[in-house]
Amino acid sequence: MRAVVFDSTLRFDPHHRDPSIEEGECLIRPSLAGICATDLHLTRGYMNFTGILGHEMVGVVVDGPKDWRGKRVAAEINCVCRRCPMCTAGLSTHCPNRTVMGIDGRNGCFADLIALPHQNLHAVPDRLTDEQAVFVEPLAAAYQVLVQCPIDKRMTVSVVGTGRLGLLVLQVLKTTGCQLTAIGRNHKTLLLCEKMGIQPIHVDDLVAQPDRHVVVECTGSPDGLDLALRLVQPRGTVVLKSTYAGDAVPNLAPVVVNEVNIVGSRCGPFGEALNALAREAVEVRSMISRTFSIERALEAFDAAARPDNVKVLLKIGSPKNA
Amino acid sequence: MRAVVFDSTLRFDPHHRDPSIEEGECLIRPSLAGICATDLHLTRGYMNFTGILGHEMVGVVVDGPKDWRGKRVAAEINCVCRRCPMCTAGLSTHCPNRTVMGIDGRNGCFADLIALPHQNLHAVPDRLTDEQAVFVEPLAAAYQVLVQCPIDKRMTVSVVGTGRLGLLVLQVLKTTGCQLTAIGRNHKTLLLCEKMGIQPIHVDDLVAQPDRHVVVECTGSPDGLDLALRLVQPRGTVVLKSTYAGDAVPNLAPVVVNEVNIVGSRCGPFGEALNALAREAVEVRSMISRTFSIERALEAFDAAARPDNVKVLLKIGSPKNA
Repeated sequence: MRAVVFDSTLRFDPHHRDPSIEEGECLIRPSLAGICATDLHLTRGYMNFTGILGHEMVGVVVDGPKDWRGKRVAAEINCVCRRCPMCTAGLSTHCPNRTVMGIDGRNGCFADLIALPHQNLHAVPDRLTDEQAVFVEPLAAAYQVLVQCPIDKRMTVSVVGTGRLGLLVLQVLKTTGCQLTAIGRNHKTLLLCEKMGIQPIHVDDLVAQPDRHVVVECTGSPDGLDLALRLVQPRGTVVLKSTYAGDAVPNLAPVVVNEVNIVGSRCGPFGEALNALAREAVEVRSMISRTFSIERALEAFDAAARPDNVKVLLKIGSPKNA
Repeated sequence: MRAVVFDSTLRFDPHHRDPSIEEGECLIRPSLAGICATDLHLTRGYMNFTGILGHEMVGVVVDGPKDWRGKRVAAEINCVCRRCPMCTAGLSTHCPNRTVMGIDGRNGCFADLIALPHQNLHAVPDRLTDEQAVFVEPLAAAYQVLVQCPIDKRMTVSVVGTGRLGLLVLQVLKTTGCQLTAIGRNHKTLLLCEKMGIQPIHVDDLVAQPDRHVVVECTGSPDGLDLALRLVQPRGTVVLKSTYAGDAVPNLAPVVVNEVNIVGSRCGPFGEALNALAREAVEVRSMISRTFSIERALEAFDAAARPDNVKVLLKIGSPKNA
């Protein structure tokens, strides 16, 4: 099969070995997949991952338990043991025995076929296009902000970073009715915010005041946390969504002095994401900058690394409703 | 009056100008004062503070409103406006208009006299010695951990750092009945933990497992946060009590991946601290390593910086019950 493989270098492999499935697993043929900042980090050595990349996808089940065959699905990325204290406590995304699709110990979805436990799958409603459904995984991660940090309309909230994750988080937060601003340095994505009805502020025009109840850090850069700490009010919350490639971060004295709460946030509820896409509470089509066939994956990765592109997709199988 | 002054260098000034008091303020004659890690940081340039140092004390009111004259008192360090949104929301320690005794914009208590608003004062019960009462301010800061992070006896908790602040936090946490361990590198203070009935672990003997519900960081060093992040379980909480002199801190990717909550924590409830000392739930006498007269403040600061000393006190007036 065709696959996008990372093992110290990134390469397209036209003749990769097909995966086999175990009891309870499904074999899925991805139609469309998304490239995320984590994929870019992985190609720089994050997690020491080697194997097939990719963890955002929509595809069709081609083999596995009868109930699933032929279904169009999105897939949760954490493959868990369902027995450990974390799993039994309902925190299975933190299962210490987990493998993670395309990130940790398990091949990803930038390939013609992928094997995954059927418990990871969510059927995609017919009314969603593949171009919408491919956003379910990152949109679920955006919804995780609300799981960990309840937000209501009385609160002032800023999102720092208006890239692919920031734009999803912004749209999720907009559904709460909170007083929301988007802070970024990319004129193109700030304009997109404005079109989405979200007040954009260019970072050069920002007067940093510590008056936000909540600041969500989505820049993927250590500077983002520094800025977030200058915007959050004492006893407020900074939600950290992005991991950094580097180590250096700002002095954390303001965290102590202002008794700030920093909340790390990762994978989220797929149900919320599917529902939001189905009722069009979140608009993703305008976020798609480029779509490449899987053969052109290296070009696609280059494109995804450029700040003028928002979401870059890989077309693998034949898309539905495209 | 005698005073310990910092203005780019630390010095003892035998002839400093006496403070005057304004309406609503009390003039206090400190009997005994404590040197804290923050004082040491201030002498290295933290907060760009200049003036009389000191924010931990017990003393006697010598002038001011009639109700307060002659009373023995401990004093809250934040002098606040009582009108801003933070003050009216009950978060006056975060008043943006505040000055802070011996830390920010206001002289401290390493002097024969100090002026403070009467609202900052707490009467010290007769049954407490000065040697106990001088710990009220840092003990209140230790109690702030429980204000921000409720802890019960089902929880596993570690305190990283067994210095003066760590030992107070440990004793406060011990009152909850939680499964508590003290992690440090100082054999002397680890022995003190053992005497207090708290399980000590030398950092060289530690097998770092991410299985604590809560880890409280009291080392004052960036390495402390790194260790705390390796000990806290996914979705657990790291309470940051100490500020750092330096900027470099570890990679925060584990915060996101493990969805850890980092809670900055500063000043706390004086009532809880006075009460705990009065009922002897917290033992502080064994923490006093050295006591110097105010004239020997420079020696005292040197002593406070040495890890073999826990709490170093400055004797200013005539101590009661000593």
